[in-house]
Amino acid sequence: MKSLKNQCIILVARPEGLPEDDCWRLEERPLPQLTAGQVLVEAQYISIDPAMRAWLDEACYLSCVELGQPMWAFAVGTVVESLHDDFCIGDKVRGLCGVQRYSAMAGEDLDKIDHRDEPLSYHLGIYGYTGLTAYFGMTDLVTVNPGDQVLISTAAGSVGSVAAQLAKMRGARVAGIAGGQKKGQFCVEELGMDACVDYKAADFEQRLARAMPDGVDVYFDNVGVPILDAALRLMNECGKVIICGAINQYQNMGQVKGPSEYLKIPERKLSMLGFTCFHYAERYPEGVAALRQLLDTGQLKYFEERAQGLDQFPAHLNKLFSGDHRGKLVISL
Amino acid sequence: MKSLKNQCIILVARPEGLPEDDCWRLEERPLPQLTAGQVLVEAQYISIDPAMRAWLDEACYLSCVELGQPMWAFAVGTVVESLHDDFCIGDKVRGLCGVQRYSAMAGEDLDKIDHRDEPLSYHLGIYGYTGLTAYFGMTDLVTVNPGDQVLISTAAGSVGSVAAQLAKMRGARVAGIAGGQKKGQFCVEELGMDACVDYKAADFEQRLARAMPDGVDVYFDNVGVPILDAALRLMNECGKVIICGAINQYQNMGQVKGPSEYLKIPERKLSMLGFTCFHYAERYPEGVAALRQLLDTGQLKYFEERAQGLDQFPAHLNKLFSGDHRGKLVISL
Repeated sequence: MKSLKNQCIILVARPEGLPEDDCWRLEERPLPQLTAGQVLVEAQYISIDPAMRAWLDEACYLSCVELGQPMWAFAVGTVVESLHDDFCIGDKVRGLCGVQRYSAMAGEDLDKIDHRDEPLSYHLGIYGYTGLTAYFGMTDLVTVNPGDQVLISTAAGSVGSVAAQLAKMRGARVAGIAGGQKKGQFCVEELGMDACVDYKAADFEQRLARAMPDGVDVYFDNVGVPILDAALRLMNECGKVIICGAINQYQNMGQVKGPSEYLKIPERKLSMLGFTCFHYAERYPEGVAALRQLLDTGQLKYFEERAQGLDQFPAHLNKLFSGDHRGKLVISL
Repeated sequence: MKSLKNQCIILVARPEGLPEDDCWRLEERPLPQLTAGQVLVEAQYISIDPAMRAWLDEACYLSCVELGQPMWAFAVGTVVESLHDDFCIGDKVRGLCGVQRYSAMAGEDLDKIDHRDEPLSYHLGIYGYTGLTAYFGMTDLVTVNPGDQVLISTAAGSVGSVAAQLAKMRGARVAGIAGGQKKGQFCVEELGMDACVDYKAADFEQRLARAMPDGVDVYFDNVGVPILDAALRLMNECGKVIICGAINQYQNMGQVKGPSEYLKIPERKLSMLGFTCFHYAERYPEGVAALRQLLDTGQLKYFEERAQGLDQFPAHLNKLFSGDHRGKLVISL
């Protein structure tokens, strides 16, 4: 192992807005040295997630990537060296390994993957945090009933596309919100949504109201203001608003805008419920089993786009925010 | 009846900030003529409530009082004439009768009061919407458990003072938020709260953090931003935020500020739950019975301040927002 070099995408400048190429540098670094309890992971797929943009800001609500350090990222890969009793060489694992080929990870910070006959990348998407987020949000945090009016933002994305299909399976009428005609078509024709509204349209709010003529019982929010406010105005009495993310806010975590329509919450007896899939860590096996069964039997469709090579990371991170991708974006190494 | 005159407080100008005296005029008007299904109510007590300020703004989330019309207000009084089969002369009733001596009300818009051996004004406070709001918020919307850390804003007010006592009875540690030393003393010494924090203090946030060293499990919000944001920063994992009102926002309903810390909701798996007591209208008898039993047995203390005469309304409405009142404010006629 000692002769191998690591390759990393390093954050070298903090962006305003979306990161330009000069925020990043691809570097060769020495392989990390393991200490007791650590495991050396060779990444095979690296996940591209909206929260990454927030991790670049010093005001981020968790904490942020340091300048001169490898960019944070979830990855799946293989254990190639182990100083931890629970991990053997060859184990498939997932963790916050960073945008790099090799990472030294504490065993406690890794999930062991129950890898079967599927691409390993699925454990970053449908069997990973995005699929599990959709699953626990739509089946545990709220109960969706037949006939419910369900609205889902980032509907063509990796969480929204799964959440929408799960709501449809429960007999709900489901409308998505996504940018542009191409994503809208994808949501309706491929994912089976009843409607999809283009948030880039000048008359977005009118279109949204027309798409939800009976109001909204469950709104799954991945974006934040102003779409969150538009949805709050359409909520039905006793409706549920799931706060899962806020992609609109991630470029400016120091000045997050709260929903000015939040007084609809008392006026209409709404519940605004938040979670991350990490709150369900003990129930991942249940979630994976349920999603696997749905995928295996063809009830659920899963879409993934792969880019090849670490150097593709900067462009594909920005594609997540502005592009025409469908479903989950990953970097394959 | 025909010879009697009505007396009304008329809204003659829309205020910015708190209404000055020139927003109001005390007028004599003819008695309203009843139509079929209506009841003539002679008010005995008129309720002063924070939402009144919002009713003065054209941007109010319900709708607003028209210029030249009597100010809206909840009142309790006696039926003096009836064209409705369910109401007899002498019945005690409650409704949105306005700041006036007589009102013609549709029977459907009145609650019949189960008046016993207590001042009728109690049915505007502890057995009225404020007591019932505290009761259903603290016993139905959330479950308070022994040892829970509970934080309550407008703690010296008519809702907060009751909510705090109900939480204490369930074994919680309870801190209040109120303006000034006098209200703080009242909360601790008379209402039994474990601490009270003065939101007017320059170092309010530091004081709040010291008052809640183990974080907040349940926050009962009557005020909105910025106190709502301060509370969100202190919330414990899986905590509940009750959105009951937003007194800070009622002076500017056209530009309500949403809580910029709302991303604590997903980060910590919080629930933000809203309601008005009107959502529990079918359960008022249960609420009144429970509160009556607590008051009769001395487990609950109730505080009310009365002003005498319609002309006292303008000054006492402003006292609600800036004054040193304790508990419920009513105008006695």
